[in-house]
Amino acid sequence: MSRFLSKNLESLAPYTPGEQPSERKYIKLNTNESPFPPSERVVEAAAEAARSLQLYPELDGGHLRAAIAEAVGVRPEEVVVTNGSDEVLNLCFKAFCSDKSPAAFADITYGFYSVFAEYNGVPYEIIPLKEDFSIDPGDYCGIKKTVFIANPNAPTGLLLPLESIERIAASNPDNVVVIDEAYIDFGGESALPLIREFPNLIVTQTFSKSRSMAGARLGFGVANEELIADLYRLIYSTNPYNLSRLNMAAGLAALDDSERTRRNCAEIIRVREKTAEALGKIGFEATDSKANFLFVRHPKIGGKALYERLKAEGILVRHFDRPRISDYLRITVGSESDMDILIEKVKKILEENDESC
Amino acid sequence: MSRFLSKNLESLAPYTPGEQPSERKYIKLNTNESPFPPSERVVEAAAEAARSLQLYPELDGGHLRAAIAEAVGVRPEEVVVTNGSDEVLNLCFKAFCSDKSPAAFADITYGFYSVFAEYNGVPYEIIPLKEDFSIDPGDYCGIKKTVFIANPNAPTGLLLPLESIERIAASNPDNVVVIDEAYIDFGGESALPLIREFPNLIVTQTFSKSRSMAGARLGFGVANEELIADLYRLIYSTNPYNLSRLNMAAGLAALDDSERTRRNCAEIIRVREKTAEALGKIGFEATDSKANFLFVRHPKIGGKALYERLKAEGILVRHFDRPRISDYLRITVGSESDMDILIEKVKKILEENDESC
Repeated sequence: MSRFLSKNLESLAPYTPGEQPSERKYIKLNTNESPFPPSERVVEAAAEAARSLQLYPELDGGHLRAAIAEAVGVRPEEVVVTNGSDEVLNLCFKAFCSDKSPAAFADITYGFYSVFAEYNGVPYEIIPLKEDFSIDPGDYCGIKKTVFIANPNAPTGLLLPLESIERIAASNPDNVVVIDEAYIDFGGESALPLIREFPNLIVTQTFSKSRSMAGARLGFGVANEELIADLYRLIYSTNPYNLSRLNMAAGLAALDDSERTRRNCAEIIRVREKTAEALGKIGFEATDSKANFLFVRHPKIGGKALYERLKAEGILVRHFDRPRISDYLRITVGSESDMDILIEKVKKILEENDESC
Repeated sequence: MSRFLSKNLESLAPYTPGEQPSERKYIKLNTNESPFPPSERVVEAAAEAARSLQLYPELDGGHLRAAIAEAVGVRPEEVVVTNGSDEVLNLCFKAFCSDKSPAAFADITYGFYSVFAEYNGVPYEIIPLKEDFSIDPGDYCGIKKTVFIANPNAPTGLLLPLESIERIAASNPDNVVVIDEAYIDFGGESALPLIREFPNLIVTQTFSKSRSMAGARLGFGVANEELIADLYRLIYSTNPYNLSRLNMAAGLAALDDSERTRRNCAEIIRVREKTAEALGKIGFEATDSKANFLFVRHPKIGGKALYERLKAEGILVRHFDRPRISDYLRITVGSESDMDILIEKVKKILEENDESC
């Protein structure tokens, strides 16, 4: 770092995104992207929007905000539209955490939460998951902290039932509870309907996974009007035009094609279950993932070793070199054919491993 | 604001962007947008990029970063690419300002500087412009603060000569000096070549104005490698994928058509001078603007009144209800025909004004 960098940022350890190598063509199962491209409507919408790119985008998320509101059954004033769900999550740390309301989140969860907390200079408590990686809702009840829960959780894929979220929100009426539903469309039940009952609840979602738009950087948050107004206050204090015309037009077109999204999610769920079964047959243990990835380990080969062997075979998966989960791999559910190749390569690696033992 | 909002944000007063009304069609001369649409190459590039929108964008600005570096004659490591120049400016406040290095900027300048400072909780000193709205470089020499200068300045349009920037950068070797060149392509000389000489100098530019891409949200900063690494450290701690595939593809295509940018800028300069002359003939005083806007006042009608009368006539311009400049209007240089209509309407308003006096 330079000698000009503010001293209170010296210890900031940035988030490490999954590798995006350009030197070789891999089967990419490491960043939870969709195997399905967006529809032709999205392509047309992007081109059309480019024709008036000399003009600033609509403020406040404009038409996209209204369309999201309609799609999820709330009013536009209850929606904030952001540059990926990373932006809305970061804003929640800034807006709703402080010395008096520290953040609280699991030890094993989206790795960005602790970075957001550090970036915004807010204290946080890390609450260990249970031995089986599930969340004990009792750990969060009446905790009087700003709670962040990824549901399904990442990288475990485990789902917390809605009644647990209700308990947590009800027992912390003076603190905001953020439910990060990046992966909710792959088999979970959304907490969205609860926002009317709990004025302290924020539900965030993204277009990156189920809507095949990781490249468009579109996320959103849903909550009661007052919390949303707080978040827009921050957006107007940093980047009022936080979304480009292109991104918003692409998002609108994707929303317009919700049938395609449902179909893609159903296919990903089918391939996930098929892959989990095939991996189970060759000795893998897997969590009960309700996301578009599997979280698995094999008793005979370590997570790092298997990650490296798969990379050598042309398949990228995600390994987290962190306590409790270093034996595991997070494997994105790609196309059926990609997953078939994965199984084949894994079998080969396990055989070679057996021979060398 | 909600009762959940962090107490230290309670006094935050967000930036007010120019109006973006949707209820009526106006001649929009209030947000310094280009009158020229982007080229067909940009449209094609956006459509092409949309086809792989299921994949995350390149990290670190990828190819766009390299193309900008080539265009401005530096190395990619000396460039940071951001979601509008607002993002790079906000990051500079976060990274390089602190209690030990307060920010310093003019009383009349881009209104977002004080908001960025408040948002990031850093102290700042406001340095009044001289009576004629010019900057006295002596005010910034050896000031030992993190300096932000818009050059040309907004909304005055006045240009600070390069030798003044050199003096300021040289006399504050332990502080960063940020030169915000959003409007540099309309007649100014860029400080870019100075970054090699001054390791404390950051020059920011944008695709919003001269490159007809306000809707694409693309800005960038150029500085020595260490400062750029600091800024990427912050990007990786908030939103590593800060730019969408669509925005980056559009930016690449626009860079590819630099001849178009040069032609558009020349035309805007021509229309600016013509409009300034016409306004001068009917009694307006104008600053010597080197930007894509004029900053004018008329002795016989106040800024707010003229703004309102023009709005009623279907023309939006920008009025700042602030000390020293409330008599002025900032008028974007639009197409020649839009400016002809402006002159005509202004004449009509002045005549009506004379009659009513």
